[in-house]
Amino acid sequence: MDRAEGAVRAAVLIIGDEILSGRTQDTNLRDIALYLGAHGVDLAEARTVPDVQEEIVAALNALRGRYDYVITTGGIGPTHDDITADAVAAAFDTELYEHPDILAMMTARWGDDINPARRRMARVPVGGELVKNPVQGPPGFTIGNVFVLAGVPQIMRGMLEDVGHRLRHGAVVVARTVRVEGSGESAIAATLEGVAKAHPAMSLGSYPFFEAGGYGSNLVLRGRDPAEVNATVDELIVALRGAGVENVRAVEG
Amino acid sequence: MDRAEGAVRAAVLIIGDEILSGRTQDTNLRDIALYLGAHGVDLAEARTVPDVQEEIVAALNALRGRYDYVITTGGIGPTHDDITADAVAAAFDTELYEHPDILAMMTARWGDDINPARRRMARVPVGGELVKNPVQGPPGFTIGNVFVLAGVPQIMRGMLEDVGHRLRHGAVVVARTVRVEGSGESAIAATLEGVAKAHPAMSLGSYPFFEAGGYGSNLVLRGRDPAEVNATVDELIVALRGAGVENVRAVEG
Repeated sequence: MDRAEGAVRAAVLIIGDEILSGRTQDTNLRDIALYLGAHGVDLAEARTVPDVQEEIVAALNALRGRYDYVITTGGIGPTHDDITADAVAAAFDTELYEHPDILAMMTARWGDDINPARRRMARVPVGGELVKNPVQGPPGFTIGNVFVLAGVPQIMRGMLEDVGHRLRHGAVVVARTVRVEGSGESAIAATLEGVAKAHPAMSLGSYPFFEAGGYGSNLVLRGRDPAEVNATVDELIVALRGAGVENVRAVEG
Repeated sequence: MDRAEGAVRAAVLIIGDEILSGRTQDTNLRDIALYLGAHGVDLAEARTVPDVQEEIVAALNALRGRYDYVITTGGIGPTHDDITADAVAAAFDTELYEHPDILAMMTARWGDDINPARRRMARVPVGGELVKNPVQGPPGFTIGNVFVLAGVPQIMRGMLEDVGHRLRHGAVVVARTVRVEGSGESAIAATLEGVAKAHPAMSLGSYPFFEAGGYGSNLVLRGRDPAEVNATVDELIVALRGAGVENVRAVEG
């Protein structure tokens, strides 16, 4: 698919030993991908790094220099292993300070006796702005083209709602699916490639499935021009049937 | 945790537009992480890149130069968007050839009439070796310190069984969990940090949970010395109780 002209591109940086150890199944990447897609922003790359400051800094600097936006998840809690704010400040060569709005929220909730662990969560890099947290706990923040969100999925999703309106939006990518049942990928590959080559502005992918009820492929057609996507769905179905592939139909999702 | 001495480190490279579009929830990263962990190999980084050759090549070269092993998933099917073999060959500055063992498997199954899409799946970089596929379809391959596996989870897991015995194994990381219920992270942060500082060879992480039944944190203690891990679990529980935190216990998982 056309990846250059007018496209707005983002990367996700997942921070956390718990993902790399396999202890936790990440779901934030998919949620962010779908959210960005709905806002016309392409997720172009994702990285997962451990809770090690130099790793976070290196990945963040590589990604923020290359993409329009970077969204990070994880490492903004109150414990010693939550070092994302420190790493982001280091990446931007700036300092952390205790944000007065967060301190005020904390004082309103807990009174004047805010323990050091909670105060850690009030720290924001100089030059940053807050990202609202409608779920629980202190806000995230944004600095430059980087958005720093929580790792807990329900909190992350809440914070994401305060991100979209700050993004430059490209044309939304429309995706449609053609489902082939009872034929393997190798039976449809040539036809699929022919149609793909006729539509260089689109991306056509084949995702095989093997289910109790049978096997086949979901052919996913993606593009920024809804009319072209719809026409290509029809074209692909006709071409597959012409090539002798039965049991082909457009499906939802 | 001690990341240097004797540690064997790997990276995962997930290849596929379907992950970055949010269409598919990746589960391979976690499966690989758990598999590597059981073999004493630390998963140190993961990247997800689109079906674009130069992106795959750049990521693969960065990762294979830095880590002991790289495991890739995705992009080895028969369709035009499956370009992982081409990208791996390009990264290693070598050519693809049709591997006679794979052609023989295909001929045994389909006779002499192997269509071009299927032949694509017989291609292996010069210098590579096969990775068995006990599930369905052609094998994966390995070249240098890179293992190239399928993206379909059940096939990926099957191929993984032919990877472990080829890896140099480090000491297995042992993980145990201390569960705190009814206390927020900020109430335990200082105690946790104190114990963590006393055990620099270990990693102690706090992962908050918010469930229908209540809230709290899972404190995960990881290290290569089982005796130290067990002793630290006890030490942490005593320290938390001494700090007035109730409802603390070691749990499975």
